[in-house]
Amino acid sequence: MRETLRYGQVGGSLDAFIGAVHRISASFDGRATLTAGCFSGNAEKNRRCGAFFHLGEDRIYDSYEAMAQAEAARADGIDFVVISTPNSTHYEIARAFLTEGVNVLCEKPLCFDVAQAEELRRLAAEKGAMFCVNYSYSGCGMVKEARALIRRGVIGEVINVNAEYLQEYLVDDVAAGEDTMVKLSSWRKDPAVAGISNCVGDIGSHIEHTVAYMTGLKLRRVAAKLDYFGQPLDLNANILVEFDNGAHGVYCCSQVCVGHMNGLVVRVFGTKGAIEWVQENPNVLYVTLKGQPTQIYNRGMGYISDEARAFNLLPSGHPEGVYEAFANIYRAWIGALLKKVNGQPFAAGDCDFPTVEDGLNGVRFIHACVESGRKDAAWVEL
Amino acid sequence: MRETLRYGQVGGSLDAFIGAVHRISASFDGRATLTAGCFSGNAEKNRRCGAFFHLGEDRIYDSYEAMAQAEAARADGIDFVVISTPNSTHYEIARAFLTEGVNVLCEKPLCFDVAQAEELRRLAAEKGAMFCVNYSYSGCGMVKEARALIRRGVIGEVINVNAEYLQEYLVDDVAAGEDTMVKLSSWRKDPAVAGISNCVGDIGSHIEHTVAYMTGLKLRRVAAKLDYFGQPLDLNANILVEFDNGAHGVYCCSQVCVGHMNGLVVRVFGTKGAIEWVQENPNVLYVTLKGQPTQIYNRGMGYISDEARAFNLLPSGHPEGVYEAFANIYRAWIGALLKKVNGQPFAAGDCDFPTVEDGLNGVRFIHACVESGRKDAAWVEL
Amino acid sequence: MRETLRYGQVGGSLDAFIGAVHRISASFDGRATLTAGCFSGNAEKNRRCGAFFHLGEDRIYDSYEAMAQAEAARADGIDFVVISTPNSTHYEIARAFLTEGVNVLCEKPLCFDVAQAEELRRLAAEKGAMFCVNYSYSGCGMVKEARALIRRGVIGEVINVNAEYLQEYLVDDVAAGEDTMVKLSSWRKDPAVAGISNCVGDIGSHIEHTVAYMTGLKLRRVAAKLDYFGQPLDLNANILVEFDNGAHGVYCCSQVCVGHMNGLVVRVFGTKGAIEWVQENPNVLYVTLKGQPTQIYNRGMGYISDEARAFNLLPSGHPEGVYEAFANIYRAWIGALLKKVNGQPFAAGDCDFPTVEDGLNGVRFIHACVESGRKDAAWVEL
Amino acid sequence: MRETLRYGQVGGSLDAFIGAVHRISASFDGRATLTAGCFSGNAEKNRRCGAFFHLGEDRIYDSYEAMAQAEAARADGIDFVVISTPNSTHYEIARAFLTEGVNVLCEKPLCFDVAQAEELRRLAAEKGAMFCVNYSYSGCGMVKEARALIRRGVIGEVINVNAEYLQEYLVDDVAAGEDTMVKLSSWRKDPAVAGISNCVGDIGSHIEHTVAYMTGLKLRRVAAKLDYFGQPLDLNANILVEFDNGAHGVYCCSQVCVGHMNGLVVRVFGTKGAIEWVQENPNVLYVTLKGQPTQIYNRGMGYISDEARAFNLLPSGHPEGVYEAFANIYRAWIGALLKKVNGQPFAAGDCDFPTVEDGLNGVRFIHACVESGRKDAAWVEL
Repeated sequence: MRETLRYGQVGGSLDAFIGAVHRISASFDGRATLTAGCFSGNAEKNRRCGAFFHLGEDRIYDSYEAMAQAEAARADGIDFVVISTPNSTHYEIARAFLTEGVNVLCEKPLCFDVAQAEELRRLAAEKGAMFCVNYSYSGCGMVKEARALIRRGVIGEVINVNAEYLQEYLVDDVAAGEDTMVKLSSWRKDPAVAGISNCVGDIGSHIEHTVAYMTGLKLRRVAAKLDYFGQPLDLNANILVEFDNGAHGVYCCSQVCVGHMNGLVVRVFGTKGAIEWVQENPNVLYVTLKGQPTQIYNRGMGYISDEARAFNLLPSGHPEGVYEAFANIYRAWIGALLKKVNGQPFAAGDCDFPTVEDGLNGVRFIHACVESGRKDAAWVEL
Repeated sequence: MRETLRYGQVGGSLDAFIGAVHRISASFDGRATLTAGCFSGNAEKNRRCGAFFHLGEDRIYDSYEAMAQAEAARADGIDFVVISTPNSTHYEIARAFLTEGVNVLCEKPLCFDVAQAEELRRLAAEKGAMFCVNYSYSGCGMVKEARALIRRGVIGEVINVNAEYLQEYLVDDVAAGEDTMVKLSSWRKDPAVAGISNCVGDIGSHIEHTVAYMTGLKLRRVAAKLDYFGQPLDLNANILVEFDNGAHGVYCCSQVCVGHMNGLVVRVFGTKGAIEWVQENPNVLYVTLKGQPTQIYNRGMGYISDEARAFNLLPSGHPEGVYEAFANIYRAWIGALLKKVNGQPFAAGDCDFPTVEDGLNGVRFIHACVESGRKDAAWVEL
Repeated sequence: MRETLRYGQVGGSLDAFIGAVHRISASFDGRATLTAGCFSGNAEKNRRCGAFFHLGEDRIYDSYEAMAQAEAARADGIDFVVISTPNSTHYEIARAFLTEGVNVLCEKPLCFDVAQAEELRRLAAEKGAMFCVNYSYSGCGMVKEARALIRRGVIGEVINVNAEYLQEYLVDDVAAGEDTMVKLSSWRKDPAVAGISNCVGDIGSHIEHTVAYMTGLKLRRVAAKLDYFGQPLDLNANILVEFDNGAHGVYCCSQVCVGHMNGLVVRVFGTKGAIEWVQENPNVLYVTLKGQPTQIYNRGMGYISDEARAFNLLPSGHPEGVYEAFANIYRAWIGALLKKVNGQPFAAGDCDFPTVEDGLNGVRFIHACVESGRKDAAWVEL
Repeated sequence: MRETLRYGQVGGSLDAFIGAVHRISASFDGRATLTAGCFSGNAEKNRRCGAFFHLGEDRIYDSYEAMAQAEAARADGIDFVVISTPNSTHYEIARAFLTEGVNVLCEKPLCFDVAQAEELRRLAAEKGAMFCVNYSYSGCGMVKEARALIRRGVIGEVINVNAEYLQEYLVDDVAAGEDTMVKLSSWRKDPAVAGISNCVGDIGSHIEHTVAYMTGLKLRRVAAKLDYFGQPLDLNANILVEFDNGAHGVYCCSQVCVGHMNGLVVRVFGTKGAIEWVQENPNVLYVTLKGQPTQIYNRGMGYISDEARAFNLLPSGHPEGVYEAFANIYRAWIGALLKKVNGQPFAAGDCDFPTVEDGLNGVRFIHACVESGRKDAAWVEL
């Protein structure tokens, strides 16, 4: 019976931000060890990074293709690969590892178009590989609590959803010329690297997944007004949504809303109650039953559901943040993989991490919003 | 030079809620005295109400028509009439007093359709009567501060607006049958009394006016998804809006959102900053400049603009509420009327109250939303 | 059976702030009419004020002594007098009216020393006069809700109290010289007018009464550290308190705490739960039961106690503020006086307003704190 | 030039909570590797823990004495030891490692009495060993920002401090008998393990250090009322404090305050401004300048000081929590140790972690409070 796993990483050299978050989060419960890597296209940076993490020379690879093949061939090869590279490369790298049967944990968005996403899903199924797409907010304890409460029927049937993800960091692009934008800001606004959408793709997709995860509802159609402010990709979007149960709602995402740093807020209204979660203060959940006082649920308390408690890392009142949300994704992912490698059967709740299916839904959502935007906010089915 | 005014009231007998709010608010600065009234269609209640307020017998009227004519004919007749009756009667009563040249302060919504509203506007102009429509939130000091800051360019050009007005009090109607609804709840949901819309008409129109007042922007078109949940009038609406400067936004109004009592929230985002006002905590204003910390403005402090300070009733930290917002509408209204009756010229800012024009815009907004709702959220011009 | 009352006012001429608040608050439910007054020592201002309020010439008095005698002698004399003058004059004016048997509503603090307070209490009892001291915060609906919940045992036995009243408006006095202070600031810091304490007297006394009203506990002793910063009266005080049930707590009051406008906050901790009320957001109450989520009670909701509901002026979510708190004091006061003048018996809860007894307790508290302060925070019994 | 360090741990076997927090936090920037340990007195647990972390057999020790000697003797011995054992053992373990010249990072409180603390300080100086006491809250970015702002004079001279640390988790002990308490609850209330104080020792000491760190002020004396509720150690304390600059304040700590999970709140008031930090929402800081709006500072923004930015782990709006605070202590500690082992000179700010001196101050504070408590809150000098 194995107690720990080996993993490799593509991307994430020493100066890369999100790559380090992955390594730290993966190490939280001590059950996964970084063993191989292709951290950078720059050979010197790649080698230096591997050395810093005390990797064997033969586990530092010049290309992800070589890494996929070599690790798959080793008896002590990696159990999974973490892909933390720019959006435009996710598809090819994921495909290379899946082809070799290696389990994949990939940053979001999964890839650029629906056909790619469907191919990755197909390939994972064919090769028997597990696949996690890192929608990190679903790792938050109180998002899990919201999901548990809604599943249990505490707020009744969902009749309205109001969710937003607001940031201010690109507001200067509103007044900038087109050329300036791509230069001034990051690859996120370069279609060649980011794909067909900036704002909806980057943060709108988090709204889509977080609401889907909490409510279990599927989106039927969207009517989206995207604002480009003269730039090649969208910076602001106001979106009417319709769910498969007939309920409506609004998703607003923006990178030009001054005063908001990383303002993901989800409010779900039902026939019996309502739930509100605010990412910037993620350790509480506002729960109101019809006609009753709003209750402030605190992570880690005795009244929290078993589903959420299973991911509790610190006592109540001791804030968990982004690393801990990531760590919870890894906790579920590593737990499930250990069952897989040990040949144990899965029980309900064992795979509480976002999958390739969630990644595919994200790609569909982004494409529907962009198409609706082009049609002046006409409804587009997902 | 007169220092005080006489007014009369139609509606507002002793057991009526909003009628009393008007009387109290009108009395805040001691410059207006209730002198005449037609408080109820019930003669006994009408008389009793007049007596309670020590009115002369000849100033208590059986009908608003009689009141309009008699008061207009007296040398010591009322200087203005307050109309605080159900929505369906506003038009006729306002017309009766305007016809006699009496100044009118009318509860919102002004009336049922655009043609009526335009007629009232025409009549007021023709007779030289002043006309106030009581969009009370524009009386709040911090709404005035928001307006002053935006006018002064503090947040730059407006590029996105996110506003909502959420209540929970009709959530039980979602599951009720159609007949039940009208019975269970108030006249607000009876089309014969409330007009073509319940939720948009009652509270959506407050969003429309408050945003217009703060920003000075006009709505160009709306795309509204209204939810009826099987009832004759709407209970929930999610609305995409487009302003005359090309900016977009979202208005959400609902009476089925558990956890919200009277949740009017307006957030205006500009190229240089943003402003947020929350009605349930109305004495503060959140102001953020690009890249800077959010600032919590407090009513009554030295840094508050002259425009808002002119309506400050209490020192900072001493909460003002709904009565004070109403009182500020009356303060501006009475101040302006005193200038009129004394033949003084108006200066800028002398008429800082909502007018018949605002009332007309409200009626247009309601109609556009209902029409868009019928067309599955297609855009409708105002 | 009389339905309305007549009242007179001492102090409160047209340019006085708190006097106007009294008149507006008294008029909220239409049951009290201003009938007589001695508004100012300045004869011209006094007369002008009376005229503005349409008082009869013979009801405008040059001195409070004359007013007390004349009104007591009239068949249609005032039913009560409102005293809204500087602190140093309360005692003499109240005594004059009590001597004539006139009911008195007096601003707080009641008077300067314990002997005076005890004499007023004795005189009121002897003459059968009712006496209200305006500790206005006990008029707030959610303070009444806190009281009702604590009485009902919801939070168990009180084991700790943490209350504060913080303001910033005198912070500049910390660096000023002694002479400057009295000049720069108001009469509040002049011992001849304000009495032996500034900060504890003005706002500390509100903590004392609000906690006493909510909890029903009596203070046994205090250990107070008062900071004078070189000024003749205190500007800051940190106070350990002990209640008659053995529980301890802390009261902090300050006029030099930047960032706080009128920050009265009361937190009461019991063996089963806790309650928190924040004056600057007075329409909610935070209630937590042991091991449970904090609940945000909203004024006006169905779950609110009968005791608090009796003083509800507006629907939930429509903020009530300071005028409404004052109006609730008047509502209880006028209701009780109407019973008295109509010879009706009092029922439980009929006299829910602060009395001369509360005023006496306030004077005792102020004196104990000042004495403890002089003794370097040694314990002083009340 | 070494880039990474080796460390060992005493305490912290696999089922120990805080020990794991140390390991995760130490690994955040990849510069420290767990190399040796004596994780448990239980040999089996100890060995299993070492194996889980892939330690060499010869680096897993049966006793901390053996570990201290063996590691000090090795050329590749540990660079520092982490002590995460119960309070009662800190002193002996720290002394053992210091005696061998090993650098020590010890959980708080440092030890039980002032003499012990002074000996550890002397020993560290004598042996040239560095010594960190883990007052973790001083690792929070916004606590560092508060310190930077106060140092820079932004709030002027400190004139009042109001700080509290409230929890509810021992409220049931109030009603329990003495015997029950020790059994029901943890070692924290057993004097043999926890020392002379429970509540002041465990959480009051965090107030003391956090305020000292932020303000740079030293405590001159305290007047403390401790509540035991029949238990052997204190559960609640209200404390008047006096600083060396003459300012006063209040510290309140409690484990019986329902509604508070881990409520450390520090408010520092100065002649020019004020600062407030709330541990449960640690990524913001409330900063108010006299007469100005309160500003909500956000961790990670451009306006944040260099001192705080140096410890920023995530972009603004992405919450950091307790692990990140710990990680920042380690970041400073490891950075300083690397300079030491590489023979580099220290620059200003290089040792931004709590030292043995801070640990000594903490022990002094606890003793002064307990002594004052025994004397009915008489002042006791530190």
